[in-house]
Amino acid sequence: MTKDEIKIFCPATIANISCGFDVLGLALGTVGDVMVIRRGNSPGIRITRITGQEIPMDADKNVAGVAGMAMLKELEYQGGFEVEIHKKIKAGSGIGSSAASASGVVWGINHLLGNPCSEEQLVRFAMEGEKLASGTPHADNVAPAIYGGITLVRSSDPLDVVRIHAPAELFASVVHPQIEIKTSDSRKILRTSISLADGIRQWGNLGALIAGLFREDYDLIGRSLEDHIVEPIRSILIPGFDEIKRAAIAAGALGCGISGSGPSIFALSKGRETAVKVSESMSRVLTGIDLEHDTYVSEINTQGIRIIS
Amino acid sequence: MTKDEIKIFCPATIANISCGFDVLGLALGTVGDVMVIRRGNSPGIRITRITGQEIPMDADKNVAGVAGMAMLKELEYQGGFEVEIHKKIKAGSGIGSSAASASGVVWGINHLLGNPCSEEQLVRFAMEGEKLASGTPHADNVAPAIYGGITLVRSSDPLDVVRIHAPAELFASVVHPQIEIKTSDSRKILRTSISLADGIRQWGNLGALIAGLFREDYDLIGRSLEDHIVEPIRSILIPGFDEIKRAAIAAGALGCGISGSGPSIFALSKGRETAVKVSESMSRVLTGIDLEHDTYVSEINTQGIRIIS
Repeated sequence: MTKDEIKIFCPATIANISCGFDVLGLALGTVGDVMVIRRGNSPGIRITRITGQEIPMDADKNVAGVAGMAMLKELEYQGGFEVEIHKKIKAGSGIGSSAASASGVVWGINHLLGNPCSEEQLVRFAMEGEKLASGTPHADNVAPAIYGGITLVRSSDPLDVVRIHAPAELFASVVHPQIEIKTSDSRKILRTSISLADGIRQWGNLGALIAGLFREDYDLIGRSLEDHIVEPIRSILIPGFDEIKRAAIAAGALGCGISGSGPSIFALSKGRETAVKVSESMSRVLTGIDLEHDTYVSEINTQGIRIIS
Repeated sequence: MTKDEIKIFCPATIANISCGFDVLGLALGTVGDVMVIRRGNSPGIRITRITGQEIPMDADKNVAGVAGMAMLKELEYQGGFEVEIHKKIKAGSGIGSSAASASGVVWGINHLLGNPCSEEQLVRFAMEGEKLASGTPHADNVAPAIYGGITLVRSSDPLDVVRIHAPAELFASVVHPQIEIKTSDSRKILRTSISLADGIRQWGNLGALIAGLFREDYDLIGRSLEDHIVEPIRSILIPGFDEIKRAAIAAGALGCGISGSGPSIFALSKGRETAVKVSESMSRVLTGIDLEHDTYVSEINTQGIRIIS
């Protein structure tokens, strides 16, 4: 047992990554929440402070509270923890706001308890928070937040998380247009069946993307960042999507798609310099249609959650 | 230009590999056709000798003839070649019989011409032979025959073949029950649409399989060798399939599935010794139901087609 309180950085994450719908995710390094986890005097999880966002303080209604309680229950732990959440990731942005809170609390508790749980266990606890947030216990954001880098969720039940190599020169650009799309809504518009031909195209691209990442073959990564199944439908909900994508590719991005269930749009590039240009080009399109937005540029955060103090 | 005649080994291949339907393939080292390609006196392709199988001598009706002519046409080559085909791979076995002939002829001609064509070009020519054989110009057998090792066809049109790392201790066991299933028939029984959930499961497995191959993580390879889309349907056509699969896994195989469109069944194992045991177990099941069959055990043939003399 190390100490009684830690302050941690809980990264934003990009899930899906074009052809990796529902399985792939990566952690960002430059945008994330800050959380403080400390041992409490009463059993269970108590949310003591939230800044940056209007979310429930009641632990039963808060993704961090629910994830933390799932962990304490599984560990049959009698004590409790206090949690401060300083939100920097906007809710509904599509870059894993709920996942950051859910992952941070279980990672922080695990650290304070002397790391009794594996990363895979932590993902399972954090998924309970995701279930509260979106109705389904998906792992594609919490896995990269906890493992760091790029992860593939081979299976959610039983959980099987696979680490994917993250090439050092791979950078992400993200624009977050200030419109709201709920994950649950954006799932509803998806068809429940797809053509076998589209399926083959998707797994051909995903297999090639994984190979491109391991081989650090940036051209192959670019050719594989295609999604003919979800993007054509979900992009309808995002003003300017097609133009933003064209602008990203024209500025040198390897590929561009919807982050999670949107509305954030991500692009991947080789090198920070290109990624900055790409984010500027994407941003210009949104400015052109008078849509307020945030922009981020980040390396792939191979560490995931990290201790600030 | 090197010489006027070569004799080559053209490997059998396993296409699909469970979750890699229509995209993945690998080359075998211990079973394959022998072909002799020599410069001829008249333009075009002339099949001068075929042993081991009753297939058309007429170049227009022979997959090797068609593939070779597609190549000569593209190269605008005025001369011609004579081709001998000594079939060891039975037609309709599901281990790439037509692909071996189609790949061998274009690889051999390329060699005799001083290698003017890339491997990708050769795959395109060989696909014309596959089109004659099965109605669709698929690349999942000809790509591993020509590239060697394990290949992923990201896209057939435009063609994009990706080399996948083949772990050194990975071995294939194959049993070929002597029943006939035509590729064209076995495609017809497939549904043209699949559920999104099954699609996600398939690309999750394929992504994990590719990661497992690059990381030489044999357990992960084993967990990922699943196919919930095609195998449940096609396996109905193969007597004893479920029992053979159970026997392979019980004998230590990482995974087991249908080779190509069947009826051959493959298993992958770590180490030759296990692969031999696995092939014996699979064979015993077929013997038990009085079904004549061939069995093969092979390393992954990373060279592909090779010169015998």
